[in-house]
Amino acid sequence: MIEPQDCGDGDEHEATPQTVPTLPSMPRERVPLQKSSVCSRSYFMVVMVFFHVYIINVIALLFYVHYNNTPGDVLASPSREAQSGSESGFQRDIYLPRLEGIRVGHVQKVSLMPGKTHEMRTLSLKPLLFEIPGFLSEEECRVVVQLAQLKGLMESQVMVPEGQEELTEQLNLSSEEIFNLLDLNQDGQLQLQEILTHSRVLDGIWLTPENLREIYVGLKADPDGNGLLSLEEFRLLGSDAFQRFLQQRGVKSSQLVRNSRHTWLYQGQGSHQVLQDLKKRVTRLTRLPSALVDLSEPLQVVRYGQGGHYHAHHDSGPVYPETVCTHTRLAANASTPFETSCRYITVLFYLNSVEEGGETAFPVADNRTYEEVSLIQNNVDLMDTRKNCDKSNLRVKPVKGTAVFWYNYLSDGQGWVGEQDEYSLHGGCVVTRGTKWVANNWINIDPDYQRQARYQQLVSLQEGEGAEDGDEPDEDGPPSQVTDAHQEL
Amino acid sequence: MIEPQDCGDGDEHEATPQTVPTLPSMPRERVPLQKSSVCSRSYFMVVMVFFHVYIINVIALLFYVHYNNTPGDVLASPSREAQSGSESGFQRDIYLPRLEGIRVGHVQKVSLMPGKTHEMRTLSLKPLLFEIPGFLSEEECRVVVQLAQLKGLMESQVMVPEGQEELTEQLNLSSEEIFNLLDLNQDGQLQLQEILTHSRVLDGIWLTPENLREIYVGLKADPDGNGLLSLEEFRLLGSDAFQRFLQQRGVKSSQLVRNSRHTWLYQGQGSHQVLQDLKKRVTRLTRLPSALVDLSEPLQVVRYGQGGHYHAHHDSGPVYPETVCTHTRLAANASTPFETSCRYITVLFYLNSVEEGGETAFPVADNRTYEEVSLIQNNVDLMDTRKNCDKSNLRVKPVKGTAVFWYNYLSDGQGWVGEQDEYSLHGGCVVTRGTKWVANNWINIDPDYQRQARYQQLVSLQEGEGAEDGDEPDEDGPPSQVTDAHQEL
Repeated sequence: MIEPQDCGDGDEHEATPQTVPTLPSMPRERVPLQKSSVCSRSYFMVVMVFFHVYIINVIALLFYVHYNNTPGDVLASPSREAQSGSESGFQRDIYLPRLEGIRVGHVQKVSLMPGKTHEMRTLSLKPLLFEIPGFLSEEECRVVVQLAQLKGLMESQVMVPEGQEELTEQLNLSSEEIFNLLDLNQDGQLQLQEILTHSRVLDGIWLTPENLREIYVGLKADPDGNGLLSLEEFRLLGSDAFQRFLQQRGVKSSQLVRNSRHTWLYQGQGSHQVLQDLKKRVTRLTRLPSALVDLSEPLQVVRYGQGGHYHAHHDSGPVYPETVCTHTRLAANASTPFETSCRYITVLFYLNSVEEGGETAFPVADNRTYEEVSLIQNNVDLMDTRKNCDKSNLRVKPVKGTAVFWYNYLSDGQGWVGEQDEYSLHGGCVVTRGTKWVANNWINIDPDYQRQARYQQLVSLQEGEGAEDGDEPDEDGPPSQVTDAHQEL
Repeated sequence: MIEPQDCGDGDEHEATPQTVPTLPSMPRERVPLQKSSVCSRSYFMVVMVFFHVYIINVIALLFYVHYNNTPGDVLASPSREAQSGSESGFQRDIYLPRLEGIRVGHVQKVSLMPGKTHEMRTLSLKPLLFEIPGFLSEEECRVVVQLAQLKGLMESQVMVPEGQEELTEQLNLSSEEIFNLLDLNQDGQLQLQEILTHSRVLDGIWLTPENLREIYVGLKADPDGNGLLSLEEFRLLGSDAFQRFLQQRGVKSSQLVRNSRHTWLYQGQGSHQVLQDLKKRVTRLTRLPSALVDLSEPLQVVRYGQGGHYHAHHDSGPVYPETVCTHTRLAANASTPFETSCRYITVLFYLNSVEEGGETAFPVADNRTYEEVSLIQNNVDLMDTRKNCDKSNLRVKPVKGTAVFWYNYLSDGQGWVGEQDEYSLHGGCVVTRGTKWVANNWINIDPDYQRQARYQQLVSLQEGEGAEDGDEPDEDGPPSQVTDAHQEL
């Protein structure tokens, strides 16, 4: 047995009582290994091993608690389990929170700024859409409108967009291939609505079924007069017949997909305090990492004059394997004609109360099904916000200071952005009296997590280089990405 | 300076080289405090303090990581924020996970048992409804059916339920008050569907609009023959006129709300391994704490013979302030006529593939709106599963071994059970050929968190007392709560 001992007896340093003892240094000289008393190196080793085992146990216990019992885990585990069950084994650090809609009409209180709570009402679940009255003060609305006016607004859509022929050449498709692409229901014939859908997306010209019938007559495109185009009839036409016809005839602004003027306001460092406050509020509202919000498009301010409108559209396109996002194209390192703006969330602010008209319409909100073709039926075109806003499932009246926001994409079930939410289709009803001022904040996130991560890394590397001038307006899209964000994913 | 030293020099025990040194015991004798060499008590204290500070740092770091960076937190924080914004300041330890539906048709892999993954398909979002093929093996289906047959099945519904007159007396309502309760749309008249809805819920008798017209004629209840009852006409009838009429005329089982036989199978300790396995699988599927699953109703096995049906109903009722749950009534310590079974989740197993008919119908799944009155329109009664299953929004065909499950309640937005999900309305279509065997697993959770917590505490106190015999069948409801669960919330 080892006796309790006071080996300090043999110590030369006869110490006076010390209240704050100095940390003893480790023995620097070799100690004969044979010694195994309480003060030997072996003893020290044993104590060290003991404590390290203890520490490892504590850590292990904490990890056990962390992964088994905590409320956070209760919520997180579904994603993890789902992920472990799926093919892709790669682990992510970030899980994007998504607000809960609960049910239409549900009201939840949200804290967006110190000392004030807002009420957020669920307007629909498909898309997941909320309304927050009083998101902006009267004063803030005024400032944003004035800043936009100072900066100057441009036409949101020029008559006939350019670059379209290039795209057609780039794709190099035969008439037959184009016909097949247009023939959505694959019945071997082109219905009016199939041509219309195509024309609206590609040409930005809003043809009504009546317009199209006139064009058919003008071009003698439909000799049998049944309102359908067969492959033979389509071949005879040539792929740019419609465009040429329309350019000759001229297009009024009310015949365009959108009829408004807009500008972009940079919200980063050095911008007006109101704009920075707004960005902060949006970050709190969406509960997304601020890096994601910081790296998104600037604020878009839009003015609809009397008679202005924006026919129903998606703010961001569907995700195919080839799709790249505008904001991460640099990091994507790929060339593809499928590019979309990847706007995960739209936050829309009403900067004034419109005298009459100008509602935001969601034609298919909470519909049981979504079928693109059935949007135009029996000559009723649900996407036409000049004619059929009253037939939309949901209309939001513009009230000064109110914000609405919705998700343009679903969740992928694993905490990231998934498929496009087709139900997010929306438009601006025609302003029948007065003017309508709104602003859009889009949160851009690449549905490809890796690409988003790579993009944010690239931006953080570039930081400090081109941070001064990030808000040069583009012709059509938003200005080039702001590069002053210092945070990473 | 403290010299490195080998104080073992003064040791009486001249040790031979030891490969496995024994753990030195602490000095048991008092050591003069003046000594401060490397082997003194001070030295030991310093090492201890150093290590404890180290350990505390590690723990603090882990907690920091836990509450700031982990994915669990990103998901959990919205609930917490929402809660902090709401009036009720009380903090809960538990956040019930809720599966994500994403969109109709979405398929996710789930791991329910070792070495196997199942595919779970989203069937609807309102209610949140999933289908999992192959949840049970052929053998397991056979065992469950046999166990139910061994135990013996009873009629699911007797002709005219008792206790109803007591309830009417207990409430002590005047004719006028009853009239007002029945007059759902408050137009001062009772439409056919208002009487029907009432009769079905309270009497369990499934009258069709034609039946009711016959009764009106038989009772001379509607002298003006307009199919509506005014307050005067209703007063003349007396509150139990319908019941008396029906009892005289007699009711066939096909005219009842449900036409089936069922039994209850206890799933706790000592029960058949298949039943215990099933419970485990349900726990993994729903991702709920096992204590909640353990304390829920036993498995209900139901047999529908040829011609059997169950008209559309909710498995659990709405939540009013006065509502108490059957399973927590003891803990609720309140007496109220509003009692419901608080079945948060229904897991329905198909134990055989039905030859013809017997689908599970969800008449209003993913409907844009839910209005009780509009369920019966133009003589088409969507809740009638003998007549109108084909008009249901969704029908699930019974396939042996498949499980479907859905939430009967929404989330409250703060991680607990919220309002009833009215869209969870469902029924069993009439079995036109063959027999249909199904089993139901219900997870009972009180929407009042405090009451559920109190109930679980009570059960854990009772543990060991009445754990043997928990599966005595009731006449109508499930057997009294099982008390063998050892876990708390």
